[in-house]
Amino acid sequence: MHRIIHSRLTSLLHPPTFTQPYLKPFSTTATTTVIPPKMDPTVETTLRQILAEKQSAVDAQAAAIRQLKASRPADSAAVDAAVERLKSLKLEKTAAEEHFQALIKSHGGESKEEFRQSVINTLERRLFYIPSFKIYRGVAGLYDYGPPGCSVKSNVLAFWRQHFVLEENMLEVDCPCVTPEVVLKASGHVDKFTDLMVKDEKTGTCYRADHLLKDFCKEKLEKDLSLSPEKAAELKHVLAVLDEFSAEELGAKIKEYGITAPDTKNPLSDPYPFNLMFQTSIGPSGLIPGYMRPETAQGIFVNFKDLYYYNGQKLPFAAAQIGQAFRNEISPRQGLLRVREFTLAEIEHFVDPNDKSHPKFSEVAHLEFLMFPRELQVSAQAAKKMNIGEAVLKGTVNNETLGYFIGRVYLFLTSLGIDRERLRFRQHLANEMAHYAADCWDAEIECSYGWIECVGIADRSAYDLRAHTDKSGAELVAYEKYAEPKEVEKVVITPVKKELGLAFKGNQKMVVEALEAMDEKEAMEMKANLESKGEVEFKVCTLGKNVTVTNKMVTIMKVIKKEHQRTFTPSVIEPSFGIGRIIYCLYEHSFYTRPSKAGDEQLNVFRFPPLVAPIKCTVFPLVQNEQYEQVAKRITKSLIASGISCKIDITGTSIGKRYARTDELGVPFAITVDSTSSVTVRERDSKQQIRVDIDEVAGVIKEVTDGQSTWADVLWKYPTHSSASADE
Amino acid sequence: MHRIIHSRLTSLLHPPTFTQPYLKPFSTTATTTVIPPKMDPTVETTLRQILAEKQSAVDAQAAAIRQLKASRPADSAAVDAAVERLKSLKLEKTAAEEHFQALIKSHGGESKEEFRQSVINTLERRLFYIPSFKIYRGVAGLYDYGPPGCSVKSNVLAFWRQHFVLEENMLEVDCPCVTPEVVLKASGHVDKFTDLMVKDEKTGTCYRADHLLKDFCKEKLEKDLSLSPEKAAELKHVLAVLDEFSAEELGAKIKEYGITAPDTKNPLSDPYPFNLMFQTSIGPSGLIPGYMRPETAQGIFVNFKDLYYYNGQKLPFAAAQIGQAFRNEISPRQGLLRVREFTLAEIEHFVDPNDKSHPKFSEVAHLEFLMFPRELQVSAQAAKKMNIGEAVLKGTVNNETLGYFIGRVYLFLTSLGIDRERLRFRQHLANEMAHYAADCWDAEIECSYGWIECVGIADRSAYDLRAHTDKSGAELVAYEKYAEPKEVEKVVITPVKKELGLAFKGNQKMVVEALEAMDEKEAMEMKANLESKGEVEFKVCTLGKNVTVTNKMVTIMKVIKKEHQRTFTPSVIEPSFGIGRIIYCLYEHSFYTRPSKAGDEQLNVFRFPPLVAPIKCTVFPLVQNEQYEQVAKRITKSLIASGISCKIDITGTSIGKRYARTDELGVPFAITVDSTSSVTVRERDSKQQIRVDIDEVAGVIKEVTDGQSTWADVLWKYPTHSSASADE
Repeated sequence: MHRIIHSRLTSLLHPPTFTQPYLKPFSTTATTTVIPPKMDPTVETTLRQILAEKQSAVDAQAAAIRQLKASRPADSAAVDAAVERLKSLKLEKTAAEEHFQALIKSHGGESKEEFRQSVINTLERRLFYIPSFKIYRGVAGLYDYGPPGCSVKSNVLAFWRQHFVLEENMLEVDCPCVTPEVVLKASGHVDKFTDLMVKDEKTGTCYRADHLLKDFCKEKLEKDLSLSPEKAAELKHVLAVLDEFSAEELGAKIKEYGITAPDTKNPLSDPYPFNLMFQTSIGPSGLIPGYMRPETAQGIFVNFKDLYYYNGQKLPFAAAQIGQAFRNEISPRQGLLRVREFTLAEIEHFVDPNDKSHPKFSEVAHLEFLMFPRELQVSAQAAKKMNIGEAVLKGTVNNETLGYFIGRVYLFLTSLGIDRERLRFRQHLANEMAHYAADCWDAEIECSYGWIECVGIADRSAYDLRAHTDKSGAELVAYEKYAEPKEVEKVVITPVKKELGLAFKGNQKMVVEALEAMDEKEAMEMKANLESKGEVEFKVCTLGKNVTVTNKMVTIMKVIKKEHQRTFTPSVIEPSFGIGRIIYCLYEHSFYTRPSKAGDEQLNVFRFPPLVAPIKCTVFPLVQNEQYEQVAKRITKSLIASGISCKIDITGTSIGKRYARTDELGVPFAITVDSTSSVTVRERDSKQQIRVDIDEVAGVIKEVTDGQSTWADVLWKYPTHSSASADE
Repeated sequence: MHRIIHSRLTSLLHPPTFTQPYLKPFSTTATTTVIPPKMDPTVETTLRQILAEKQSAVDAQAAAIRQLKASRPADSAAVDAAVERLKSLKLEKTAAEEHFQALIKSHGGESKEEFRQSVINTLERRLFYIPSFKIYRGVAGLYDYGPPGCSVKSNVLAFWRQHFVLEENMLEVDCPCVTPEVVLKASGHVDKFTDLMVKDEKTGTCYRADHLLKDFCKEKLEKDLSLSPEKAAELKHVLAVLDEFSAEELGAKIKEYGITAPDTKNPLSDPYPFNLMFQTSIGPSGLIPGYMRPETAQGIFVNFKDLYYYNGQKLPFAAAQIGQAFRNEISPRQGLLRVREFTLAEIEHFVDPNDKSHPKFSEVAHLEFLMFPRELQVSAQAAKKMNIGEAVLKGTVNNETLGYFIGRVYLFLTSLGIDRERLRFRQHLANEMAHYAADCWDAEIECSYGWIECVGIADRSAYDLRAHTDKSGAELVAYEKYAEPKEVEKVVITPVKKELGLAFKGNQKMVVEALEAMDEKEAMEMKANLESKGEVEFKVCTLGKNVTVTNKMVTIMKVIKKEHQRTFTPSVIEPSFGIGRIIYCLYEHSFYTRPSKAGDEQLNVFRFPPLVAPIKCTVFPLVQNEQYEQVAKRITKSLIASGISCKIDITGTSIGKRYARTDELGVPFAITVDSTSSVTVRERDSKQQIRVDIDEVAGVIKEVTDGQSTWADVLWKYPTHSSASADE
C-alpha cells in the first residue's frame, strides 16, 4: 500500500494537493498560512462594523431624502438640510474607508511590492537572472541565471559542499534526471504528485483550482469594503482551510462563489488532479515511460545498499546530492519562487531508529534562534527565540539528529547573509505531516512574499527505504552485530503436511503458506484455540475462504534462538534545500539603497558577504594611464591565480560611477590604482578606504575574501585613506 | 532555410546520421574511423592469401583422397600416403590460422579489453560509478556517479571554471534543460537530430542501422578466416564510408549481407530516422511541446543580446555554461562513453568575423603536441607533434582564436592527468564539417575503445546567431563604431511608381518589391542593360513570370553615404567539453597495478594528480590507541577547515591494507600517526615517506594539494622516513 510520501522540500517547494487531508504532509503555498494574521482581527472586525454602519446611515439618509422629495407639498428647506446631512455622512464613510484601506496597505502589500519591484528591476537589469528563451517570448516558470546570478549560485553550492558534504563527511552522489516510471511508482509520485486543476470550458485554458479560490477570497477581503463581518470571517476561514479541501469541496466553493475563468469570465470545469511530473519516454520503442525527477532523493534511496557497504556497513551516515529537479506547474506564479525547473540540494542521513543521538550535537546546542513549534502556532502565538539544545532536551524537537541539522541549517543560512531576524524554524502541524513522519521543521525565510519555506528538515522514519524494498525486492536494510549472540524468543509454526494434504488436497500449498505467514500474535491465538477447542476456523486469503484447521495439522511453539545480529530498516532524516528560493530571499535581504553623494538619486547596493559575492573585487585605474593600467592588470592576474573572481574596469568613467556600478553587483571590495607603489582598497558598505602596498594587496583581498580576516582586522592593520574624489 | 547544424560536441558525442553526406559535420562513432588501420594492410592481405591457399590445398588433397578411394582396385598404400599428406596440410593451415589470430589479438582487442575490464571492475567496486536504478535492473545508458566519482567530477568542473571562466573572464550562465520546441526548431535539432533505426519485424526491438552493419563487417573481418582478400577489402571499405550512407544505402547493404536481428535472427525493417531528443510537454494543456536540451549552447545563443550589453557592447567575449544534456540513444553501447544523459561544459566565444586574432595567443604559441591535420589524414599518415604557433602561422589552423583555445584545451586536459602521448587534435575532414563552419578540431583521447572525441573546438561562423535571428526576429548582431564616419558607396534603387502602376496595375506592388530586393550586382546589371537597350526582362518571383521593365520605370544609381558604425553578426568559436568522456579516459590513463609486498597479488592504483583526486589525504593512527586517534582527528579537522577532503581510518587493519584501499581510490597522500609529536606522510606513487611535525602537517598537505609546492619540494625540505612496517 503506497500512502503518501514527500514531506521533503521538493514537495514543500511545490506542494501537491491531496484529497485526503491526513495524507497531506505540507502546506500548499509558499507563503505559509499559519503565520499570524496581518492585521489584528479585532481591529479589522470593528472597522468593518463601523464601515457597514456608515453605509447603512448613508442608505437610510438617501431613502429619507427620496421620501421628503416625494411628499407633496415638498419641504425644500427640509430636503436641503437632509442633503447636507447625507453629504456629511458620505464624507464620514469615505474617511472610514480610507482609514481602513491605509491599514490594509501598511499591513499588506503595497510598500512590500514596491520594494520587491526595485529588487527585481535591479536583478533583471544586471542579469542576475533572465526569463528563459526571452527572444521567443519566454516560457512561464523558466529562468536563466545570468553571469552574476550564476556566480552567486555556484558560490552558494560550493559553500554547501564545504559546510555539509566535507565537514560532515557525507557521501555525495550524482544521479540522472531521467527516471524510469517504476522508481516513481514506488515513491508514490506517479499516483499522488498532483495539483487540482480546472479548465476554462470554452478556451481550455488551465488554472490551479486552489489559486482561483484563494485569489477570489483575498480580493474580496481587500477590495470589497461593503463585506459584512460574517462574510469576511467566512472567507478567512476558507483561506485557512483551503489546503485541505478535496476536489469536490473546491468545486463546490467555486460554484457557490460563482468564480469564473479570470481572463474570459467563462464557466469552469470541475477540479481534477493533474500530475506535475514532466513525462517522457526512454529509448526508441516508446514502451519505457519515464519522468524528469521531481526531487533528487530517490537516486539516493535506490543506492542505499551500495552506499552502506561503501561506508563500511556503519550507521549513521549521510548521502547528499545536488541537482536539477522538475515540476510541471499548472500556472507558475511568484516569479523566482515557483518555477518549473530548479536546483535542489538534498541530504539523506540514515540512522538506527533506536538511536537518533548525534555525536556532534554539543557543537550546535548553544545556538539560539526563532523557532515556531506546533503549540505556538495552534495557540496563535508568535515564533520565539529558543535554544536548540533545550528544544531537544524538552522534546520540542524530536531527536538530537534533527536538532543538529536544524542548527547546521541555521549556521548555513546566516553565513550566506540571511537575516537571522527574518529566519525561523517552523514545525509542521500534525495534519501537515505524512503519517509515517516522526517530526518535520521548515526553515522559513521572510521576504516580500511572506514567510517562504526554503529548507525542509524531516524525520521520514523508514518510509522511503521500505517503499523501494517492497517494489524492487532488494533488501534495503542495515545490521547491528551483537558483541555476543543474544537469545531471542521466537514462535515456530510447523504445518503437518501429511494431515493437511489429506484434508485439503490440491489446496494444501495455499493453506501451508497461510499458516506460515501468521505473525506472532495470530499464531499464539491459534495455539490457544487449538489447545482449548481442538480446531479453529482459519481464513486463507489466497483461497478466498475459511478452512477448519485441527490440532493435528499444525504445531506452534515458542523456542529460544540465538541471534548474532539485528536486521532493521534505517530511519532517514532529510534536510532538503531549495537553492533558488534561498538565493532569491538572500537577494531581498541583501538589497538596500542609499543616496548618491549629490543626493540626486538612490543607488542600489547588495550587501553580499564575500563568500557569496559574484565578483570579489574590482580593480580601477583612477585615470586612463598606461602605468596604472599595467598595475591594475598585474593585481588582477595575481587575484585570479588565487581563484578570486575580479573585474578590471579601465573605462574613463568617474570613480563614483564605477563604484555605483559594482555596488549594484554586490562587489565587496574595490581597488583603486592611483599610484605605482600603493593603492586604495574600499569596502562596499562602510565606504571606508585603506592604503595597501601593491605587492601586498592581492594577499589582503584573499584574506578578507576567504574568511581568514575581517575588514575590521585589515582596517586596524593598514592606514586609512580619505579622498574627496574617491567616492561618489 | 535551415541546413544543418551542430559541429559541436553534443553532436560529436552523440552524432546523428544524415542522409546527405555534405550536410554531415561529424563522424558517427566515438572511435573515429580515420585512425590508421590496426594491422599493416599488406601483412593482412598476404596472410589472408596464404590462408586461402592452405585451404585450397586441403580441399584439393581431400578431393584427391576421395578419388583414390573411389578407384577400383583401391591402392591402400597410396590412400594412406595421401591421408598423411592431408594431415600435414591441415596442420599447416591451423598454424597459419593461429598466427593470423594471434596477430589480430595483439593489434586488436583482447589485451585492451582485459585492461578495460580491470579498470571498470575497480571503478564499479569502489563506487566511482553505479548503473542507475540498479535495484530495478537499471536503464541502459544511465549511470550514477558514486561518492569518489562525484568528487572527481566536481574537481574537474571546479578546475574548468578556474581555467576557463575565471582566467578568461567568461560570462557563465545557467539555463534550464526543459526547452520549448521553437528554440530547437531554429537550431535544426527538431528536423535533423536523428539516427537511422531498424526494427525487428516480429518483436519490434529497435537497433541502430549503422551499428548492425558495422558489427557484421567487423565480425566477418575478425572471425571469418576464409574471407577472400577481395571480400575483406570490400567490408573494410564499407566500414570506412558507413557514416556517409543514406537510409536507402544502409538498407540495401543490410539486405545484401542478409543481416538479421541479433537476438532473434528475425528479418529487419528498412532504416528510418529516429529523433534523439527526449520529448515532453510544458504546462498542463499539452499544447506546448518541449524537449530536454541536447546541448547547452542554445541557451547562450538566445541570450546573446543581453550578454553583449552586459559586456559593455564589446567584442570579443565568451559565455560559458555547464549543465546536463540529454540524448535518447537507440541502443547505448560503450559503457560510460555513450550515455543518455551527460554533463557538457560549453564555451561560445563571440568574435568579429573580420578579426579573429587573440590578445593572449602568445601565451600558448610555444606549446607543442600531437596534431592530426586534414592532409595527414587523407594521405594515410600518422598524427605528428606540431607547434601551435606555427600551425596558426602556416594556416593549418584557421585563426588565432581557434589556435588559442586548442592550446588552452591541451593545458586543461594534461593538467587533469591525461597522458599527452595519447592526446591529439584532429582536424575535421572537409566532408565532416558543416557547410558554414570555418574550421573544426577535436581533442581526441586514446583509450581502450580507440581514439575518443572528448572536446570539439569549432569555428561555427555566424550560423547559430543567424538561425535564431531568422526564427525569432530578434536582431542578434554587434556593432563596430567608427572613430569617424565612413563614406560608403551604396546602390540606390528608386522605382517610379506612376509608370509601374500604369504598366502593371494590380501587380505594381510585387514588381516594386522585386526591384527593391535586387542585390548590388543584379541592380548594376539592370542599370547597364537599361542604359544600352532601354528595357529589360525581369523575373518577379512573387508573380511567377517575367515582366518587361523600361528605363522610365526605375532609376538606379550609386551614391556615397556616411556611416557611423558597422552592423554585423559575430562569428562564434565553440569549445565544447564532454565531461563524462574526459573523466572516463582519465580513469584509464591513471590506472595501473603493482604487486603487493608479498608479491601474491596485484594492487590497483589510480595516479590522479591532487587536483583531481576524490580524497586528497587519508589519516591513519598506526595502532588503535586513544592518543593517536585524538591526533588523527585534530589533523583531519584542520584539513577540512582548509577545504581539503580527507578520510580518517581508525580500523585496526594493517597499514599496508589501508594504503592499498586508498591507492585504489587514487588518494595521493597518507598521514600515519605513529607518535604524538610528528607523523609520516606517504606519497602514493613513489611510496616515499617524510616525517613532519603534527602542527605543520596540515599546511604541508595543503601546499602539495593546491599546487603551491610539489612532492619533490617537500621531500627536499623534510627528513625522509623509512620503516619496515610502513608499506604493504
